Amino acid sequence: MKLASVGSVAFDAIETPFGKTDKIVGGAGTYISLASSFFLEKQSLISVVGGDFPKEFLEILKSKGIDISGVEIKNAEKTFFWSGRYHTDLNSRDTLITELNVLGDFQPVLPDAARNADFLMLGNLSPSVQFSVIEQMAVRPKLIAMDTMNFWMDIALDDLKQTLKKVDVLIINDEEARQLSGVYSLRKAATVIRAMGPQILIIKKGEHGALLFYEQNIFYAPALPLEEVFDPTGAGDTFAGGFIGYLASKPKLDFETMKRAIIAGSALASFCVEKFGTERLLEINHTDIYNRMQAFVSLSTFQLED
Amino acid sequence: MKLASVGSVAFDAIETPFGKTDKIVGGAGTYISLASSFFLEKQSLISVVGGDFPKEFLEILKSKGIDISGVEIKNAEKTFFWSGRYHTDLNSRDTLITELNVLGDFQPVLPDAARNADFLMLGNLSPSVQFSVIEQMAVRPKLIAMDTMNFWMDIALDDLKQTLKKVDVLIINDEEARQLSGVYSLRKAATVIRAMGPQILIIKKGEHGALLFYEQNIFYAPALPLEEVFDPTGAGDTFAGGFIGYLASKPKLDFETMKRAIIAGSALASFCVEKFGTERLLEINHTDIYNRMQAFVSLSTFQLED
Repeated sequence: MKLASVGSVAFDAIETPFGKTDKIVGGAGTYISLASSFFLEKQSLISVVGGDFPKEFLEILKSKGIDISGVEIKNAEKTFFWSGRYHTDLNSRDTLITELNVLGDFQPVLPDAARNADFLMLGNLSPSVQFSVIEQMAVRPKLIAMDTMNFWMDIALDDLKQTLKKVDVLIINDEEARQLSGVYSLRKAATVIRAMGPQILIIKKGEHGALLFYEQNIFYAPALPLEEVFDPTGAGDTFAGGFIGYLASKPKLDFETMKRAIIAGSALASFCVEKFGTERLLEINHTDIYNRMQAFVSLSTFQLED
Repeated sequence: MKLASVGSVAFDAIETPFGKTDKIVGGAGTYISLASSFFLEKQSLISVVGGDFPKEFLEILKSKGIDISGVEIKNAEKTFFWSGRYHTDLNSRDTLITELNVLGDFQPVLPDAARNADFLMLGNLSPSVQFSVIEQMAVRPKLIAMDTMNFWMDIALDDLKQTLKKVDVLIINDEEARQLSGVYSLRKAATVIRAMGPQILIIKKGEHGALLFYEQNIFYAPALPLEEVFDPTGAGDTFAGGFIGYLASKPKLDFETMKRAIIAGSALASFCVEKFGTERLLEINHTDIYNRMQAFVSLSTFQLED
């Protein structure tokens, strides 16, 4: 197995300036595995849902080569549910409802195939749960990447620091990087955070792109200026999934490959925000993604000499 | 004359988290002409100062090939003075003092050499003053660029729209682009603003780089992630000066040259913020600038294929 990912599979109800949805399928695990599925024929998703979760959606995941034997179905319980309303600028949102349901006592158990995965992607979950997943790996993966959020920095910083020691890549946003490091300059923040464990750091800046810190190098990936961001939900997880999926499909883990992986993640995220939830990710194909990645080349390429 | 620039030559008193200054020399015209002087042997600055302005600083400008015959010295009056305090994040600041002094009734009069300049840079001034400068040109310059700010959008929007009709390049920040266009998406904002006159639009995003809209193309220039921004004063004007100076030194005005000009402006701005006021701009040389521009290449270059 090339990739195992752990993350929520959930219901979201979303309100943006452009409209609102009833309960639709979301969750970090969903976005990560859908995004990475464009680069991988086979991968494993580890998660938990309730009896209310639509079987048809699990079939869609399977049709994308996602092994869902690690997705536990607790028939007597309900799926994790989040509801939120975005502000006009779409950069901030209010959480209206959070019902943890099955996610409240989620103890992921990795199927054998997942325990031998080359790449491990830890979606945003409590750091102790992320740690327990790493502990279950039969062999140390070639690369472990993780996401986290300010919530865990507030209530579980010690656990988070333990988990950070075990991972290769941390993917967080600029605000989280500043909180975790305690410094404002992202360049200084990167030094502080990398000393905590992850040798590779990706700082997402939303509509301002992303920064990759790799060995002594920095890469600034642009974000595509979009006519409209329709629904930002899942963009960060889609970015992470595109990144790890692209990497897992390549033989090398050098700086050049990492840069391309970030462009792949950025391209997928730019699709994700064009419609509600996973809708756009379920429409696009490899050609769309390749063309979008080419758009990133046009956007940022320049030469100092003629 | 390759370039004529109009803008304030002023005193600033600055407080940042790293320290504070007494009155030091600042002003949009100062930063614009110092930055552009790295690319041009000769140019003209049009401005006004009071009798209190240090003659030595005017000599420094002259030593950089800046013709100051258009800088009026009103001996009985005082130089424009601004004092401000930056917040910890350096992205916002409070104005403590604004004394317009000589700038209050500034009516620029262009010397003959300036009236025949190939390039005209209008620093942030009232739109009617900017308009009067355009009217004084003997022949229509190859390129007219201008800066403005939200203050003029609030109190002189009609004048601003009249001036915008006359210029080729508008250089503003993201917040100003949103206010001027009335839309949040910068891509949509660009369409609205370009319909007002300027065919070329540059949206500065501070630590997030800059966007160039040129014909049907968009270029995303990164900003160099700095260890520390010591004093952001003048960074925007230095960017504009580096941009217009680089352009004025080149035979072509195509997209590729515009991109390089933005990198030149970004490189100069990245030096500007390293020390108080104009201090760093007075230390650096061509090699420093070339190396900094190379750092932008490393920062943003990637290939989709090996």
